[in-house]
Amino acid sequence: MTVPIKNPSKVYPVKGIKLAAVKSNIRYADRLDLVLVEIIQGSNVVGVFTQNAFSAAPVQIAKSHLETTNSRFFLINTGNANAGTGEDGIVAALLSCNTLADIGNSKCEEILPFSTGVIGEPLPLDKILVGIPTAYSKLKENDRVNAATGIMTTDTVPKLVSKKLELAGKKVTITGIAKGSGMIKPNMATMLAFVFTDAEIERTLLEQLLSNAVKSSFNRITVDGDTSTNDACMLVATGESGVSVDKTHDADGLKRFSSALNELFVDLAKALIRDAEGASKFVTINVTEGASEAECLAVAYTVAESPLVKTALFASDANWGRILAAVGRAGIDGFNLKKVRIFLGDTCLVSEGSLSAEYSEAAGQAEMNKVDICITINLGRGSCNETVWTSDLSHDYVRINAEYRT
Amino acid sequence: MTVPIKNPSKVYPVKGIKLAAVKSNIRYADRLDLVLVEIIQGSNVVGVFTQNAFSAAPVQIAKSHLETTNSRFFLINTGNANAGTGEDGIVAALLSCNTLADIGNSKCEEILPFSTGVIGEPLPLDKILVGIPTAYSKLKENDRVNAATGIMTTDTVPKLVSKKLELAGKKVTITGIAKGSGMIKPNMATMLAFVFTDAEIERTLLEQLLSNAVKSSFNRITVDGDTSTNDACMLVATGESGVSVDKTHDADGLKRFSSALNELFVDLAKALIRDAEGASKFVTINVTEGASEAECLAVAYTVAESPLVKTALFASDANWGRILAAVGRAGIDGFNLKKVRIFLGDTCLVSEGSLSAEYSEAAGQAEMNKVDICITINLGRGSCNETVWTSDLSHDYVRINAEYRT
Repeated sequence: MTVPIKNPSKVYPVKGIKLAAVKSNIRYADRLDLVLVEIIQGSNVVGVFTQNAFSAAPVQIAKSHLETTNSRFFLINTGNANAGTGEDGIVAALLSCNTLADIGNSKCEEILPFSTGVIGEPLPLDKILVGIPTAYSKLKENDRVNAATGIMTTDTVPKLVSKKLELAGKKVTITGIAKGSGMIKPNMATMLAFVFTDAEIERTLLEQLLSNAVKSSFNRITVDGDTSTNDACMLVATGESGVSVDKTHDADGLKRFSSALNELFVDLAKALIRDAEGASKFVTINVTEGASEAECLAVAYTVAESPLVKTALFASDANWGRILAAVGRAGIDGFNLKKVRIFLGDTCLVSEGSLSAEYSEAAGQAEMNKVDICITINLGRGSCNETVWTSDLSHDYVRINAEYRT
Repeated sequence: MTVPIKNPSKVYPVKGIKLAAVKSNIRYADRLDLVLVEIIQGSNVVGVFTQNAFSAAPVQIAKSHLETTNSRFFLINTGNANAGTGEDGIVAALLSCNTLADIGNSKCEEILPFSTGVIGEPLPLDKILVGIPTAYSKLKENDRVNAATGIMTTDTVPKLVSKKLELAGKKVTITGIAKGSGMIKPNMATMLAFVFTDAEIERTLLEQLLSNAVKSSFNRITVDGDTSTNDACMLVATGESGVSVDKTHDADGLKRFSSALNELFVDLAKALIRDAEGASKFVTINVTEGASEAECLAVAYTVAESPLVKTALFASDANWGRILAAVGRAGIDGFNLKKVRIFLGDTCLVSEGSLSAEYSEAAGQAEMNKVDICITINLGRGSCNETVWTSDLSHDYVRINAEYRT
C-alpha cells in the first residue's frame, strides 16, 4: 500500500555533479544498491546528521570528514546500515573510502560514506569494494533516477524533486533525491537525502539554508516516531552555473533561492510520508494559535504518533475522541480545553471541549474517506503555528515490519 | 489474541463491601455493563486519576466528591466514557449520582461515578437510571467475578486478584478488580481499578500506600502510549476485619501489608498487559544501572512504545538493532554506547555498542519464541533500576482499533 506520489515531469541534471548506481548484491540480487556521487572540485558541501546516540559508523566518519574539508564523493549503500557494528564497522567504512580515494584520485577525508538498511549486521565489504570501480566507471551527469532508485530500502518508489529558477538573468538548478519509509522521525536531520545545486554559495550561508530547509521539512515528519541511526541530509552547491547566491549582492535572489530550496525539501519530505510503510493516508496535522513552537510540536507529534489515532485514520473513522485524548496527554501546561477547536478538513469536530454543534457524522465521514486528510488543532492561546506530516497505521505496516529481515 | 492469564484460584470477599453488576444495554445488548459497589460507613476511600488534560466528566466529579467526604458508593458503567461531552456530560453524571443517592439513602457527594468506553458520545442516562435500582437490589458480598466482568470493554477476560494475610493474629483480606486493554499508558493513575481491604487504615496512610503501589504497577505499563481520559484507581479500607494497619502500633505488619498490596497491584497491572489489545507477547523491560529513575523510564518507555520493536516482538524476530536504535533516541545526556549491554532473557545481545561475541541467532530465536519475553538494558552508568511491562504490536491490534466504534 502507498499513497500515490506525483513524480516531477522533468529532473534536471546539476552542473558539476555526476552519479552512478550499480548492483552489488549487498542484500538482494539484481537490485541497484550502491550509489556514487562525484562532486566537482570547488563545491561547498554541508550536511546534518541523526541525533540518535547510537549513530552508525558511516555517520561518525561522514561527520568527521566533513569537518576537515569539502567533499568530492558520496558513497552510498543500501541493504546494510553498518550500525551497531562497533570498531569493525568503522574500519569497513574507512576501507571503502580509501578504495574509492585511490581510484578517484582524491583523499580519504574527501569521501563521505552513507549506509542504510538492516542494523547490526557486518557490512559486506567485499561486495562494496567490487562495486566501487564499476560505479566509478559509470559516473555521468544524467543518472539521477537510477541514483534515487539505488538508495531505496523499503521504499516502493524513487523520490526526486527538481526545480529551475532564474537569478541575475541566468538559470539555476536544484535537484534532490531522498529515501526512507520506515523508522522515520528525523531529529535535527533526516533520512538519506542529497540535494544539489549549481549555484555558488559560501559554506556558512549554505549551512543556514540547509538548517532552515530541514527545519520545516524533514524535521516535521513522522511515520512511527523511530529516529534512525543513519539519518543524513546533504546539500551541495557546485557553483557551476556561474550564479552567486549571497546576501550582499542580491538579497531578493537569495530570498527566491531559499524559498525554492525550502519548497523542494518539503516536497521530498512529503514524498517520504506518501511512501511510508503501509500508508493508505497522507495526513497533515496543523497546530495553530499555540503559545510556543515547542507546545505546537508536542501536540502535533502526540497526535501524529498515537497508535489509536493512526488506526482510526486507517479505518477512515472520524473518531475525534482519540484525537482529543491525544491532545490532552501532550503535556501542555495550563491547558484550557474550552478554548480548543479541532477541525477535520474544514469541518469543525470539537469546540469548547465537546462535539461541535455544527458537526455531522456524514461530514466527518466524507473528510475521512479522502486519501489526503488534514487535521487542524487550534489551541486558542497564542500566535505560533506548526505543521507535521504523517501516515496511518495499517495492517501492511505491521506485515512489512514483522517480515523485514526474515 | 491474548496472552494466557492465570486466574486466582480463590477470590475472597471483603467485609464491608457489597457489589452488583447488571445488564443495562448501554452499548451492547445482553452484557453486564453497570456495576455498583457499596462501601460500609466508616471506611476510608482514596484514589488517583488520569493526568490527561481532557479528563472525563465522571473523573472531574469523582475527584471533587472525594475531596469533600468519604465515599459510600462507586457507580461504574462501560460502553460510554462520558468524555468530551462538555457540560451535558457533567449534568448526566451528577443526575446518575443523585438517583443513586435517593435510593441508597446517602448524599450525592458520597457517590463516585466512573465511566469507560467510547469517547465523545452522550451518556445514555435513561438506561443508567433504569439500571441503578436493579443493581441496588442485587447488592451482595460475593459478586466479584460479575463485577470484574461488568467493567470490561475490549478486555477479553475479567481481572481479579485476591490475597489473605495474617496480621496481629487475625486474617486481613485484599481483593482487587481492574479493566483495560487499549489506550493504556497510565500517568500517575491507571485504567479502572478498584481494590478493597477490610483492614483499618487512616486516610493519609492509605493515600501513601496507594501512591506507592500505583508507582510500581499501573504506572509502569504501556500498551500503546495513549493515556486515557478516564483512568482511575481506587483503594478502599473498610476496617471490618478489626485489624488496624499503622506505623506506630505494628511497623512489621504495615510492611507486610504494604508488600502484599504492592504485589496485588503488580498482578493486576500485569493482567492488563497480558490481555492487551492484540497481544501475543508479554514483555518485561528492565533498565538497570541508570543514573536516575527518569532516564531508566525514558529508555524503558522508548523501547516499549517503539512500533518497530513491537512488530519485531510480534514476529518473534530478535532484531536487536531496533532495540539499540530505540535506546539511542531516548534522549539520554552524555550517553556512552560502549557501556551499554542489552540482554534477551539471559542471552547477551549487545555489548560495547555492537553484537556480543557470545550471541548466536539460535539463542536469540529461542528467547523470542517464548510468550513471556524479558529485555534487559544495562546502561552501565549508575545504580537506578526500573521495570516496565508492555505488549507487542500485532495485526489484531490494528484490526481491533480499526474496527472499534463501527
